[in-house]
Amino acid sequence: MGGADQVSGTRMVANGGGMEENHSGVATNMPIDAIINLDHGDPTMYESFWKKTGDKCTVEMKGYESLSYFSKSKSLCWFLEPKLEDAIKSLHGAVGNTVTDGYTIVVGTGSSHLLHAVLYAVTSRDQPNQMNVVSAAPYYSAYQEITDLVKSGLYKWGGDACHFDKNEPYIELVTSPNNPSGVIQEAVVNREGGILVHDLAYYWPQYTPITSALEFDIMLFTASKCTGHAGSRIGWALVKDKEVAKKMIKFMEVATIGVSKEAQLRVANILQVIADDSKHFGSPEGENFFEFGQNLMKKRWEILRETLKKNQLFTVPKYPFQRCNYFGDDTQAHPAFAWMKCKEGIEDCEKFLRGHKILTRNGRRFGSDPSFVRASMVGGEEEFNLFIDRLSKIQIGDKNEKPNANLE
Amino acid sequence: MGGADQVSGTRMVANGGGMEENHSGVATNMPIDAIINLDHGDPTMYESFWKKTGDKCTVEMKGYESLSYFSKSKSLCWFLEPKLEDAIKSLHGAVGNTVTDGYTIVVGTGSSHLLHAVLYAVTSRDQPNQMNVVSAAPYYSAYQEITDLVKSGLYKWGGDACHFDKNEPYIELVTSPNNPSGVIQEAVVNREGGILVHDLAYYWPQYTPITSALEFDIMLFTASKCTGHAGSRIGWALVKDKEVAKKMIKFMEVATIGVSKEAQLRVANILQVIADDSKHFGSPEGENFFEFGQNLMKKRWEILRETLKKNQLFTVPKYPFQRCNYFGDDTQAHPAFAWMKCKEGIEDCEKFLRGHKILTRNGRRFGSDPSFVRASMVGGEEEFNLFIDRLSKIQIGDKNEKPNANLE
Repeated sequence: MGGADQVSGTRMVANGGGMEENHSGVATNMPIDAIINLDHGDPTMYESFWKKTGDKCTVEMKGYESLSYFSKSKSLCWFLEPKLEDAIKSLHGAVGNTVTDGYTIVVGTGSSHLLHAVLYAVTSRDQPNQMNVVSAAPYYSAYQEITDLVKSGLYKWGGDACHFDKNEPYIELVTSPNNPSGVIQEAVVNREGGILVHDLAYYWPQYTPITSALEFDIMLFTASKCTGHAGSRIGWALVKDKEVAKKMIKFMEVATIGVSKEAQLRVANILQVIADDSKHFGSPEGENFFEFGQNLMKKRWEILRETLKKNQLFTVPKYPFQRCNYFGDDTQAHPAFAWMKCKEGIEDCEKFLRGHKILTRNGRRFGSDPSFVRASMVGGEEEFNLFIDRLSKIQIGDKNEKPNANLE
Repeated sequence: MGGADQVSGTRMVANGGGMEENHSGVATNMPIDAIINLDHGDPTMYESFWKKTGDKCTVEMKGYESLSYFSKSKSLCWFLEPKLEDAIKSLHGAVGNTVTDGYTIVVGTGSSHLLHAVLYAVTSRDQPNQMNVVSAAPYYSAYQEITDLVKSGLYKWGGDACHFDKNEPYIELVTSPNNPSGVIQEAVVNREGGILVHDLAYYWPQYTPITSALEFDIMLFTASKCTGHAGSRIGWALVKDKEVAKKMIKFMEVATIGVSKEAQLRVANILQVIADDSKHFGSPEGENFFEFGQNLMKKRWEILRETLKKNQLFTVPKYPFQRCNYFGDDTQAHPAFAWMKCKEGIEDCEKFLRGHKILTRNGRRFGSDPSFVRASMVGGEEEFNLFIDRLSKIQIGDKNEKPNANLE
């Protein structure tokens, strides 16, 4: 999560204007005046990599396979496919971003699903009040919606962790690298009775330097942003406390009776392919997924920075160079989202860009202010190129112009 | 749902005794003293049918397919695969069990997921009190757990619909054919302000005569019990009111950001194969899935009734013959579960059977009493045969015996 984005809002905006949708990011020949939807982080930029891999990434399922609710897993998580468990361990081992020994792996229908399970698992029916769920702003825009979805009596959204001053138990969601800002984060509340949940959707080498193998109590990952397979809806949690893992599994049982076997088996294959090829650096076949991802993200960020430098209307964060244990050299973050701030004179950056038919997510949604927007950097190439082209044509004089009426 | 069963409880019972598990139902060469797990309805009996179908039921997915969160659907439900939508409509059309024209189809990770979505969709954040969720006993044992999972402020479990006498808005869950009892059900409360949800997991010709094409406001189905593909976790809802459908889709978005594309595409293929072959009755190749299913269920029920007649310890319901529009003749229900009642002298039927290493679900869990148990009739053949063998050896004198200590 952190990578998992609520989507229907912008989709309706795009439809509302009666214009063509570009949400798939894989459309070809987009009209020059097409709406560019960078609101959600649909990771279709990886498609070209997967097209090159050929048959080794193809999975086949026969009609009689995986009929049962159960996986033949030795794990506590009775619906986890053993192949997926092995592939997850291989991949973390190869990348070195987390420790897996001593952890229980819980699979979910994406990592949003797992966050719901965590909230259920770390709260108690006997507690007198709802637990506060907090996260440091700018925080992932879906956290509040997830927490308050059905007005649970177990937990409630408590807002920006930086302003949390209640003397009550709390759950702090730490997204690192952060969505939307891309920076490495640590817990900010640091009080007794606090439960930490680390959303590590973007802690992969294409997005950020891997500086250590993390071993937090509860760590969430998702295939969506790791490999680009968002349509599979596979996330996983590494959970240190067996009792917490058991309660998460119970949640999954009552919520959805497990997780699709087809999706698990396909993602298992994909993760294993990445893990197996992840030690081949610089091969002419370009088979290292993380090298491919890093190169592409680096190129996009260079183009974006160059464009913003020219038009002088927006700024984006700078990221430090750090030693990446995976690549073995000093690298810089190239986040999946650009956290853009308008320069003075533009009050609502999202509205302003909408006037140029660029859909982004308003800073307000992240607990920040409307001078910020979040724009996806992981969509299709054509979409990215059109975005840059359109950005480069925005002149300083445009900042007071009216947004396109069709899109209001 | 109604077909979707919470499972970890019995799994732990089986493990707790340190004995071999047989939960997959596809085990071969089960030891004669194996624990037989009929607690959950794992529909592995269909495996032999799917083994015969060969390549037409095989699906293949390449590494680059279905990366996006979005399906290219024209439907309101942005994550629904068009192929699945088409196959669902084909199948209902071929079987004649529901109308689909004028309905919005919402796909879920199994039908439990859809019930959560319905509860969210038909309640309001502005209502002063939680809505009561009721169902006529014996009701599906998971309804209470689903409703009360996170202590929602929107809805709460209200128990047996037959005893619901509050003058408040309510949601009535109508499972027809019923799980556990197999009988055709209608709403029982029938008061103003009531919302009806029809769980039709078992309204397919192998289980019950199809007497009309239903057109209730909200109807839930699942691949698990229709085709036996429980591992795929695909359910669907037919929803008459577009605003309710929109809220269900919103729920799916925040809960899991859609539903696995792999599972949807595989189930689409399976449903289409069934639909295409469903008009070939009595072919020597036995390619009609519903004929296969009905024959097998009929045979099992005959064997069960014969066995129970001999040992005189249990009774099961009788079902009327009715005209089945699908088969075109008078047929009888052969439910997916046997709702067994102990004769006098056995207080706790589940405990008694556990003493014979037969795990079933206690009548109490269904809002009924412990003289009843629910036993799955849809598991593997070997498991079913062992069940019958063991049942046939229980003597009247056994009814006072102590349950097996290992399993308590």
